[in-house]
Amino acid sequence: MRWIRFEREGGACYGIVNDNTVEEVAGSPFGEHGKTGKRFALEEVKLLAPVIPPTFYAAGLNYEEHIRSVAAAAGTDPRLPEKPDVGYRAVNALIAHEEPIIIPRDAGEKVHYEAELVAVIGKQAKHLSEDQALSCVFGYTIGNDVSERGWQASDRTLWRAKNTDTWKPMGPWIETDVDLDALRTTVRVNGETTIEFSTNNMLFGVARFISAMTRYLTLYPGDILWMGTEGASPDMKAGDVCEIEISGIGTLKNTFQAEA
Amino acid sequence: MRWIRFEREGGACYGIVNDNTVEEVAGSPFGEHGKTGKRFALEEVKLLAPVIPPTFYAAGLNYEEHIRSVAAAAGTDPRLPEKPDVGYRAVNALIAHEEPIIIPRDAGEKVHYEAELVAVIGKQAKHLSEDQALSCVFGYTIGNDVSERGWQASDRTLWRAKNTDTWKPMGPWIETDVDLDALRTTVRVNGETTIEFSTNNMLFGVARFISAMTRYLTLYPGDILWMGTEGASPDMKAGDVCEIEISGIGTLKNTFQAEA
Repeated sequence: MRWIRFEREGGACYGIVNDNTVEEVAGSPFGEHGKTGKRFALEEVKLLAPVIPPTFYAAGLNYEEHIRSVAAAAGTDPRLPEKPDVGYRAVNALIAHEEPIIIPRDAGEKVHYEAELVAVIGKQAKHLSEDQALSCVFGYTIGNDVSERGWQASDRTLWRAKNTDTWKPMGPWIETDVDLDALRTTVRVNGETTIEFSTNNMLFGVARFISAMTRYLTLYPGDILWMGTEGASPDMKAGDVCEIEISGIGTLKNTFQAEA
Repeated sequence: MRWIRFEREGGACYGIVNDNTVEEVAGSPFGEHGKTGKRFALEEVKLLAPVIPPTFYAAGLNYEEHIRSVAAAAGTDPRLPEKPDVGYRAVNALIAHEEPIIIPRDAGEKVHYEAELVAVIGKQAKHLSEDQALSCVFGYTIGNDVSERGWQASDRTLWRAKNTDTWKPMGPWIETDVDLDALRTTVRVNGETTIEFSTNNMLFGVARFISAMTRYLTLYPGDILWMGTEGASPDMKAGDVCEIEISGIGTLKNTFQAEA
């Protein structure tokens, strides 16, 4: 099932997509909800980020080639993480499919995309074993963890390097029927493929992260977990169109723009 | 004015405290609201964390003696931050005044309090100058940035070192009438004072942080900014009672407990 969140009468509303029709839902997929009977054409609704999470988790370094390219750029030896230590991103930076990614005037040249699988939590969870862990996942969507490598190197934290407004595109929707091992991620910049990889070829998968995290913390419905990216991005410039496709989920498309 | 958030008929409700009386408010201080006419005795209501933020910001290293003590414990030279790079904490860890701080069975001995001033954002804000910055602040409360120093040193991120469930006590309320330069922070463990310091004696004050942050990001009503702590904490054990008083705001009191 595909869940979207979309603009409706000045607010936000959930809907279920079948073919190209949206069935409006009252409530949210994370609580009581029911179809209202209203229907819209998918191309006529304005999509929103599919969920605003209570907590926004990010796996960070989670694919081998990405870690090697980050180390090479920094002139250091690659060090693979030995355990799943999760990080955080910020809600202010979330935007939807087809909204513009704004590059501040003082950003350096190394503004990069990062194509990520996103797990959306559906049930409150604590102390889940790795075998149980996926039972709290509602579905999956796609994230673009836009990053400025100069700020990432110079600042004490990742605040502006990764959480500048508009730098966390997420969507287009949440897909609940997903076979993790079958997923392939493909990134296209201005229509040309820049990378393709097996999405689930992570150092630590979704279940491993959730099991480790819930030893110490409670996950809540609507929490999101971004799973990291593979490879390296070219430098993105104003006007560049970035599409991230994950087979079986969909395509997240956003255009980079210069700050006015 | 003092705003509390408290339990009411299975949900959460805001109220205004005058002397020891709570006047119930419908809505929230960050949006439309009005008094309902219902009143309660303050000692009869169950306090909740005074706000659940969209984004939970934390200044981190922001007082000189704390930075020196952290460096001494790590055997490194103290390095003062050169600019206000904000970090993040997580909503899962928030608890209220008088709720217990639970120490997991596998935590090390160095479980520490950190006594912090918390600025609560009241208005959406972007591109504020330092002179304008405090105009978006609704009020102030108190936070205890509980930390486990072993995990802080061993993990790649601060996730369990600082965001284990119950490790972010906040409260007891939001005070809107505050003279930052007059504030004094006092910490008591089991009734004995462990540290006292001038709250506003920070490397970078609230206005400087907000001005720097809003160059790149939008602050939203309800966002919170924890301002860092001074000095070093003794190791806290199950049964220890930690009180953080900030003059003109109030006292946040929580007891450490062993995980069952």
